[in-house]
Amino acid sequence: MEAVLDARRKVNLFCNAFGFAAGMLKGSLAGGRTENMNYNNISDSAKIGNNVKFGQFITVGDNVKIGDNCIIESYSYIGYSNGRERSGLSIGKNAHIRSHSVVYLGSSIGENLVTGHHSIIRENCIVGDGFQLGSSSILMGELVIGNYVKTGSKVEIGQFSKLGNYVWIFINSSLLTDKYPPSMDIIGPTINDFAIVGAHCVVFPGVTVGKDCLLGSGCFLTKDLGDLTIAVGNPFRELGSVKKIKLEDGITSAYPWRYRYQNGYPIEIASSWLAEVEKIEDT
Amino acid sequence: MEAVLDARRKVNLFCNAFGFAAGMLKGSLAGGRTENMNYNNISDSAKIGNNVKFGQFITVGDNVKIGDNCIIESYSYIGYSNGRERSGLSIGKNAHIRSHSVVYLGSSIGENLVTGHHSIIRENCIVGDGFQLGSSSILMGELVIGNYVKTGSKVEIGQFSKLGNYVWIFINSSLLTDKYPPSMDIIGPTINDFAIVGAHCVVFPGVTVGKDCLLGSGCFLTKDLGDLTIAVGNPFRELGSVKKIKLEDGITSAYPWRYRYQNGYPIEIASSWLAEVEKIEDT
Amino acid sequence: MEAVLDARRKVNLFCNAFGFAAGMLKGSLAGGRTENMNYNNISDSAKIGNNVKFGQFITVGDNVKIGDNCIIESYSYIGYSNGRERSGLSIGKNAHIRSHSVVYLGSSIGENLVTGHHSIIRENCIVGDGFQLGSSSILMGELVIGNYVKTGSKVEIGQFSKLGNYVWIFINSSLLTDKYPPSMDIIGPTINDFAIVGAHCVVFPGVTVGKDCLLGSGCFLTKDLGDLTIAVGNPFRELGSVKKIKLEDGITSAYPWRYRYQNGYPIEIASSWLAEVEKIEDT
Repeated sequence: MEAVLDARRKVNLFCNAFGFAAGMLKGSLAGGRTENMNYNNISDSAKIGNNVKFGQFITVGDNVKIGDNCIIESYSYIGYSNGRERSGLSIGKNAHIRSHSVVYLGSSIGENLVTGHHSIIRENCIVGDGFQLGSSSILMGELVIGNYVKTGSKVEIGQFSKLGNYVWIFINSSLLTDKYPPSMDIIGPTINDFAIVGAHCVVFPGVTVGKDCLLGSGCFLTKDLGDLTIAVGNPFRELGSVKKIKLEDGITSAYPWRYRYQNGYPIEIASSWLAEVEKIEDT
Repeated sequence: MEAVLDARRKVNLFCNAFGFAAGMLKGSLAGGRTENMNYNNISDSAKIGNNVKFGQFITVGDNVKIGDNCIIESYSYIGYSNGRERSGLSIGKNAHIRSHSVVYLGSSIGENLVTGHHSIIRENCIVGDGFQLGSSSILMGELVIGNYVKTGSKVEIGQFSKLGNYVWIFINSSLLTDKYPPSMDIIGPTINDFAIVGAHCVVFPGVTVGKDCLLGSGCFLTKDLGDLTIAVGNPFRELGSVKKIKLEDGITSAYPWRYRYQNGYPIEIASSWLAEVEKIEDT
Repeated sequence: MEAVLDARRKVNLFCNAFGFAAGMLKGSLAGGRTENMNYNNISDSAKIGNNVKFGQFITVGDNVKIGDNCIIESYSYIGYSNGRERSGLSIGKNAHIRSHSVVYLGSSIGENLVTGHHSIIRENCIVGDGFQLGSSSILMGELVIGNYVKTGSKVEIGQFSKLGNYVWIFINSSLLTDKYPPSMDIIGPTINDFAIVGAHCVVFPGVTVGKDCLLGSGCFLTKDLGDLTIAVGNPFRELGSVKKIKLEDGITSAYPWRYRYQNGYPIEIASSWLAEVEKIEDT
């Protein structure tokens, strides 16, 4: 639940975010210019939750709703309008938006968002809980992302892409949308649950990546990939089941990754994955 | 024609750019600090056209000329000097420079420029009308770009590159300049009219891409390419004429693209392309 | 040696950095708001050397030490904390940090640092003298970089990477760290002295690139490479000794590059390289 408080007052309350010394704040306060000592321009009509911390030089526009306990870092522009938004912007609780980022109006973002610096989230995205977007990465708008999706830096996810839950997209990878560039016929890829898109990959427009797939670094995927499949290279080739990939002990399957890696996921989700492992081992 | 007006006065006139509520502006005005309520630092000697809209936290240096009806968004630095500029900066009318961008002195940019966020245009570039530069993309300076060139995000166009008219460079592609890195022997690629450089491509130093060519995603082009040619892969290979590529109906040629796509181009240009189509169909 | 001066006073002293006209500064001074005319928030506890120039809209946090003659450009955040730093931030003399950059606490950076715009240096990096980091490039933290290393733009150097001296990493290349993504088993590549990593390359986790190696553009290096070796492609293949590559005269070896290129290196270093050439020619 988010209380609608006066944004300007809140800025004062939390002006000591990011570790500035009391001495510095006192300096800024000298002369009675309390109000703008952090040089923030936060719309009075923005709905700011409790315990939201703002950095400095921040812009928050109208029609923005920010949940409790969020951190909005310096030089960020929250609630940017390009005129194509179909609604305001809603950011769930506990978000942490790093500096120099831009979040457009029209998107609805779940709880526990984390972004890197210089990130962009464009209009009309529907994003689940626990989303992590790397530095200089871009959501191009009009796309749907499930829960606990994480990306590296410099990733671009094209319009109308559909990402399931627990997907990873690593550094410098792109999800394309235009089969015959330039055209008006835009279609995003679909990436299913638990799939891994390695670094420097390209997924072509309209292509579906199956559940639990692994795209090795530098894979240019031009066709659909069935569940649990490895793909590598440009042109890409399939290399069979992800289960073949063993950890350095030569015994443990590295994939599906959720059986060996639960770091940072909620305990109930991690437990369900561990229960799956036990079931597999029992059989 | 651009009238030379007092920059600071204009900032006041257009302080409500980007959809901030009147309520917010009133708040900022409280205390009589009208002058800097948007925290802009705009040089008094900059020549700002009529109806130019500024965001907030903007820097505009000396020797900058901004045409009528431009929009300069927040956190942008217009007129940056690295000491290598041979002139001031001139930005034609109707430009829209998105937030967190940097435009150096020394460049001359035509009308209707559009940039993404976090974009960089360096010194001594000559850029035609209708140029669109994607987010986090960089013009490295000392280069020439024709009319209606468009790029995706994270594109880098190296020094001394020459781009014709109606060229497209898609996401994450680079035009290189140094054959024997590191060296002082810098030579840019040449990209001729209507050519398409797909996503994640690399065009090597001094290489010429012919008119109407198509570089598929992930192409590393190390040699010149004749007009109307497809190239793909790393190492690259030629795949014949672009005319072979059909749209999903299996009949219509997808390339040259101008015969099927005129979106966003001026009506007189679009008409001339359509007239070409008719001529082809008549023969 | 850095004198500990009052940061705020220094901002006033150098407010005319970056070529703003006296007229503009006078305008900003009107109304007696001298103190914040550049809208900088610089911690009183930061240790700022002599003759440091600040742009505008700058944040400098606590526990930051900036050497003499540094330039910190606008919209930069120096001394950012993510809570993982093991110390303050130390930036040696003559650094030039371009606009919109972020430098975390915990890193120790030598003299003559140069960064591009939108660059990021994360926590606990040990960086030598003469480091140049391209625009939108990222040091991911917890890594070691020798002297005179230079990168292009959009480079990412992963955690725990080790770079020797005089290494070049060109545009859009990444040094990866996770063999079985996602995992907690992070290991960076090692790049030895004088090695060249071309544009759009990927060096895999834990891989060692030998001294004087050359990775051609688009190389995905998955295994160790001995000294003086060329590698290209994805999957990569070795192409023998770098000495085989001749300049356009067909006679002079292009590599090792230090025998033909000394631009920008200190005279005593350049001289030692030239002495090596003479020794080779004598034999």
